[in-house]
Formats: sequence, C-alpha cells, structure tokens
Amino acid sequence: MTVTRAIHRLTTLLGERLTLSKPVLEAHGRSETYFPLSAPDAVAFPRNTHEVAEIVKICAAEDCPVIGYGAGTSLEGQTQAPRGGVSVDFAQMAAIRRVAQEDMVAIVEPGITREALNEELRATGLFFPVDPGANATLGGMASTRASGTTTVRYGTMRDNVIGLEVVLADGRIIQTGSTARKSAAGYDLTGLFVGAEGTLGLITSLTLRLYGQPEAITAAACAFPSVDAAVACVIDTIQMDLSMARIEILDSATVAAFNSVAGAKMPECPHLLLEFHGTQASVEDMAESFGSIAQDHGGTDFEWAARPEERAALWRMRHHAYWSILQSRPGATALVTDICVPISRLAEAVAAAQEDIQAAGLPGPILGHVGDGNFHAILLFDPDSPAELRAAKAASDKMVSRALTMGGTATGEHGIGMGKLSYMEREHGAAWALMGDLKRTLDPQNIMNPGKMVPPRNAP
Amino acid sequence: MTVTRAIHRLTTLLGERLTLSKPVLEAHGRSETYFPLSAPDAVAFPRNTHEVAEIVKICAAEDCPVIGYGAGTSLEGQTQAPRGGVSVDFAQMAAIRRVAQEDMVAIVEPGITREALNEELRATGLFFPVDPGANATLGGMASTRASGTTTVRYGTMRDNVIGLEVVLADGRIIQTGSTARKSAAGYDLTGLFVGAEGTLGLITSLTLRLYGQPEAITAAACAFPSVDAAVACVIDTIQMDLSMARIEILDSATVAAFNSVAGAKMPECPHLLLEFHGTQASVEDMAESFGSIAQDHGGTDFEWAARPEERAALWRMRHHAYWSILQSRPGATALVTDICVPISRLAEAVAAAQEDIQAAGLPGPILGHVGDGNFHAILLFDPDSPAELRAAKAASDKMVSRALTMGGTATGEHGIGMGKLSYMEREHGAAWALMGDLKRTLDPQNIMNPGKMVPPRNAP
Repeated sequence: MTVTRAIHRLTTLLGERLTLSKPVLEAHGRSETYFPLSAPDAVAFPRNTHEVAEIVKICAAEDCPVIGYGAGTSLEGQTQAPRGGVSVDFAQMAAIRRVAQEDMVAIVEPGITREALNEELRATGLFFPVDPGANATLGGMASTRASGTTTVRYGTMRDNVIGLEVVLADGRIIQTGSTARKSAAGYDLTGLFVGAEGTLGLITSLTLRLYGQPEAITAAACAFPSVDAAVACVIDTIQMDLSMARIEILDSATVAAFNSVAGAKMPECPHLLLEFHGTQASVEDMAESFGSIAQDHGGTDFEWAARPEERAALWRMRHHAYWSILQSRPGATALVTDICVPISRLAEAVAAAQEDIQAAGLPGPILGHVGDGNFHAILLFDPDSPAELRAAKAASDKMVSRALTMGGTATGEHGIGMGKLSYMEREHGAAWALMGDLKRTLDPQNIMNPGKMVPPRNAP
Repeated sequence: MTVTRAIHRLTTLLGERLTLSKPVLEAHGRSETYFPLSAPDAVAFPRNTHEVAEIVKICAAEDCPVIGYGAGTSLEGQTQAPRGGVSVDFAQMAAIRRVAQEDMVAIVEPGITREALNEELRATGLFFPVDPGANATLGGMASTRASGTTTVRYGTMRDNVIGLEVVLADGRIIQTGSTARKSAAGYDLTGLFVGAEGTLGLITSLTLRLYGQPEAITAAACAFPSVDAAVACVIDTIQMDLSMARIEILDSATVAAFNSVAGAKMPECPHLLLEFHGTQASVEDMAESFGSIAQDHGGTDFEWAARPEERAALWRMRHHAYWSILQSRPGATALVTDICVPISRLAEAVAAAQEDIQAAGLPGPILGHVGDGNFHAILLFDPDSPAELRAAKAASDKMVSRALTMGGTATGEHGIGMGKLSYMEREHGAAWALMGDLKRTLDPQNIMNPGKMVPPRNAP
C-alpha cells in the first residue's frame, strides 16, 4: 500500500515527529461539530518549510493525501481526513519570523495562534485584529478565510494577509505578494491560497498587516424591541460612517442562554454588542452618535463598558457563546449555520431562520456579525437521534437556499470543509467548474486535502 | 487570414459597432506614455454581456486576440495590441445596473468612469472611493488593480470589488463573489480577475463596495525640511491610527513644477498633502493630532483647506500633476515609475531614486502615496532621443531592482502591461511560472490580451 510506503519514508525524514499513535490520529480526525471521526493514517510535525516540502514530495511520490492542521478549531471538518493520508500539524512551526514595526507587518509561521501573536505584539503598540472567537492558528485562519467580530472595521483574512510562502503539491516553494502594502504585479496568488482550505498547497509562512492599538476603546450593549429594529439601527450607523470596530447581534434565545449559563442579567430581547476604536474624543463622539441612532430605533438599556475589565467580560461572554449555548442543552451536539446576506435582507433572513428552527423543533439560538450580514444559528440536536440531525440539516438547508436567493453566500466565514460541498454548485454555477480547473492545475494528483472544495474528479 | 474571418463574422454580429476606421484603431493602439503605437485590427463596441460572449467565441474560433478597452488611461500600455486582434471597447456598456443603498453596493458595467459613477451616486449619500487620479473606467481600474490617493483609508480595487461577471476565453459567462460583504465559499475568483489586465477573461459587470459620504472632510498641505522628515511624520501618524483618507508626498522638483506651471505658491521643499474624513469633531481632533506630530518632525507652513473649493483646488493640482510635470519640459514624453516599498524604506528609496535621476541627467519630479510606500518618478525625456529613453529606462530599472531588494514591488498600482513584463520573473521567481499555469488553464489558446503578464509560451 502506498500510504504505508509514504509513512516509512516520512519516519526516516522526521523520526519521532511522525506519529501513528491512535489518540493523536483520532484527535486530528475529529471536528468541533457533528462530523463523524475521519482520522488520518499518520500525523507529521514539521519544524521548517524545507521539511514541509520534503513531506509533500514524499506524499506526491506515493500518491498519499496531505491535510494541513492548525488548532483544529474549524467548524466544517476542514482538517478531517476522509481519505486518510498524512495530517501535517504546524504546532512546531509557530514562530514569529519578523515584526517590522514601522511597516506594521509581521511575518509568522502558520502554527502560531492569534492570541499568542497578539501577546507577542503587545509591547510594540501594534496588534493583529482578525478575531474569529476561537484561538485559531494564523495558518488555519488564512486557509478558511476567517473573519469574525472585527471584520466590520478591519476586514477578513483576505484583507489582512499580504503575502505567503506556500509549498505546492509537487513540493516547490513559492513566495506570493511582498512586504509592501499593495502591488499591481501579476495575478493575486495570495488571494488564491487564502480560503483554499489547503486544497492547493500548504501555507508555511504569512505576511500579515498589523494595526496601531487604538488610543481609546469603548464597548456597549443595547437592547432592542426586535431584530428588525436592531438591524435598521446598524444600517443607519454604517451609512453615517461611524467606524465601529465590532457590532454583533444576539437574538432573545442567545440572551436567554447567556442569562442561564453565563450569569448575564440582560433583558430577554434582541441585543447589539458594540465596540468603538479611536482617540478618546472620537470614541466618545461615535458613542454619542450611536446612542441617538439607537434611540430612534427603540434601543434601551444602553450600557457602556468603558473599563477594560468590563469590556473583556462582555467579549468573553460573546466568544464563549458557542459553549454557553451547547451547555444550555446538556448532551447536545451542534450544527452551526453561517449564511451571509446583503445587510438589507438580514432582518428578513433572521426572522425566516427563526421560523425554520421552530419548524425543526430544535433549540437554535442566533447570533452574528450584523455589520457584515453574517449570522449563525446554533442548532442543538441529540447526537444519538438521526431524526434530529436530519431536522437540523433540513433547517440549515432552507437557510442556505434563502441566502442564495437573496444574493448571499452559504458561508460567510466558516468555509466549506465536509459540510458545505453540496452547496458549491448552487452558489457558484459555472464558476465552480473553474475552481475545479484551478485545483487540477495546481494539484494534478489530487493529494492536497482531497474530497473537499471542488467538484469530484472523473477518471483523468 | 483568420483575423479577416473574425472581422467578417464580427461585422455580421455588430454591424457598425465593429469598426476598422484607421483613426479609431490608432486611438486604441496608443498609450499615455512612451510605448510606440500598436493598433488592433478592429474595434468592437458591444452593448451587453451576451454580445461580449459572442465576440469572444468568434475570436476563439478564429484564434484572434481580444483586448479589453476602457478609457485608455493606463500607463503601461495595457490596452495596446502588439499582436493585433480585436479591441473590445466598453464605451457602450457604461450603465449602473443597480445601486443597493442599504447594502452600500453598486453593480456597474465596466465602461462607466469613476467620476460618472460618483456623479450618479451623489444623491444617495454614498460614494466609491478608489481614485487613481485619471477618470478611468471601473472595468479598467479593476483589471489593473488600481488604487491611488485614497488607498491608505479605503484600500485598492482588490479590496473594493466584491463580485464580478466575467466572460471567459471560451465565451462562457461566470459570476464570482456575491452581493454579501464577505464569503468563505471557495477560491477567490474575484481576486483572480482583479489585476489580471484582461489576460484571463473580460469583466462585464462589477459589484462594488460603496461608503457613506463623510460628514466632514478637511485637507491640508504641510512643508518639511526633507523627504526623510515627511516620511517619519507619516509613520508616526499611521501608527497612532489617525485614519487619514489621503496622504501624499511631493518632492521639491514636483513643488517647483506646481509653482511654475499650475500657479501654486509653495515653498520649494518636500510637502505632504493630506485629507481627513469623519465627523466634524473627529476631523478636528485628527487634524490637531497630526499638526503636533508634524511639528515634531519640523513641519511648517501648515495650511488647512477646510472649504470645499480650496480642497478641490488642492486635489485638482495633485491630480493634474502628471500634466503639469509634462508641461514643465515642453515636447517631452514621460516614463513613469511606480515602485512600492515597505514604508520604513521609503525615505531611502526616494533619496536613492533622486540620485538615479540625477545620474540619468533627466528631469524626474517625484510624488506618491506615502501611506502605502508607493511613489512615482516622472522621468521626462525627448521622444526623439533614443539615448534619453535608454537613460530613463536605466534609472527606472535601478529603482525597481532596489525596490525588490527592499521587499517591495515593481508596481504598486500601474500594473504590468507592456512596460514591466521583464521584471516579473525577478519579482515572483517560481510563482511567475504558476501564473503562466493559471493563464494556460483559463486561456489555453492564448487569445486574451496575449503577450502580456505571463511567461511567453513555448510550442503547445
């Protein structure tokens, strides 16, 4: 068997850094959500780009699948190994190669997590803003084109990765982009690998845009009589060019979970959570403008969290929402939806999703990045009940179909992985075939995270 | 001859909207700078996407080159036709298909110019911010990945095009992206066509991000003792997260041209031109903060242009800089450089460029987008002197080599076209071959703007 031969050669290359230990394999074959275990045949822990290139060359020679692995926090089973093969875990490639403070750029290895990076950056006065909630690795965040709570101000990984080092499917190493802020020199290869979920190559280094830590930050929570009213408030706020750093929506069910599990004491109605970054004068100015817009839309119980501890508590609660909601139905597993629609359709999309959830007969609190038109329903189901899983999938399917009709997307930030391949043709039409052509060009043997992202291949 | 056959079939399709008129052919074969005339064999004026698809199918069947054409304002001869063929002029595809005001999105045809678009948007309170100076078309701006004076705040075309309709090299029509703000669904095809200079397909519609017109705008000019001091001031300003909408640098030679040609009365030393967007309070706040940083770096002659007319006059002068500088040496032609470097190296890169220009014995005023690390030397030479052209090219070549050594790029915003193909391999190394692979996949016959961007093909 060729995988056996690959493992033999990889052991020669990596020694103990190639493991066949069952618990390790299973840890790399699991997902954060409902997908069944799909373990790789081996897990490799390379220490540098050269080793990654050698791993890929061996796997190419032996026709063995190669799956990149960061922190395993993706929600669509991106790192699972349905065809077996070698999981390349970047835990030992987690260094910051360089911080260019004046250029506001960092060059990092893929295995560093966003919290570790920001910890290292603290003394420089700079930070990396993309915040998907989980403490994901930067390689993983780039590969799934992650975004999260700060996108409304700072953009997604697409906007904040300006260059990459990539090991291609034949083991060649390329550099994309530069350390300059922008370039018009040729095709945007950086953008091609960001969001490719490891199906076109393995990212071995990233050049990231950094930002100055804002002089002043202020956060707030505000209650609204309805999701509609909250969304209308957000639309007005964005059009007034108030540059919020975060603006998140919680529906009543999410607030209820926060109250019961996380000890919050919020009125059980839809809420916006906000954050402003700027100078002391500008955040006060923005907060005041926002307050008056909110009032116009029936906003009440406006609470400012100006002190860092209060702010941290607010966002901790938001970041732990997934776990609070899971706990609200003990023993449950989650299917997390991720549609993103034009913001003018958001209130309608949320209302319809709430109906879908009710029809499914499952708990499904909703929360999301309202400034981007992206929200998540966390559908809780009994993992031992195939009927509940079917109901959850059916509800999710209705939401995606509606999002596509509205000009939106099946996934704002969680990516395709194992869970959303079936929507690709509907979303992209003829463009999906083009993605398959690109995959075939960059990975003719189909060894890079195979079975994901692109149309299944016929015989060559 | 196959081009003859293509022309015959295109005439049947388009009637008088396929022209062979010599003045029209020549107008489409010219460049804004120093490249000799390379006229197409015919110019087509399609009215809709269907016609564009038919044009491309005919050209594919007849192996005839197809070159997209917007306003002809590109600086590297992107729209010239060195291998002849059909220039597809989008002048009659200049409609706004839709403005979704709440979503802050516009869907436009490629032939609309940025000034026409913003004129149409005025009443909505929204605007499209990318401003390369020239009144280019949106299709052209996307194809060259244009940016310009507002990039420091609003980003480049890469950041502001969220979806495309594209006619591929075989006439298929695809949609990329969506009207949602972000998506993690598959490869970023939008990003692949933005900056491809028409070598992978023809853009027939663009979905653009719009922004709220700022409540308050204020602009200023400030003199500095040296380029070094001005750049240091900019670095401090960016790190303080003062969100400038524009920050431009002029060297003394550019100021001299403004004084002698455009009637300015500025001290003949390096200047920064700035603009702040925000609320009344925030622009005042930012202006004050900037003023004190500038003073720390020896900034003087600080002049605010708060009134719209003063502001308009300031940016008109900046936008007409190219023409003022051309006029400063009557009869001269220009070679315009476009390197972009990490901002920490900018002062050094400008100083070295000034030496290169002096060594070349040519006038070469410098100005640029200092917040992005991108600047232009406008090298003026006698079009009848091959020696002067050689000297200009040699100076430009030195600047590019230095930019690449500094981790920068040969072109921040003007693109590759006819002028920078020779730098692609040096800048991208093995990644340039990958660009060639992508081109071969999307355009196997090499009919889309052939002879540009990618490595020359060997026999198939």
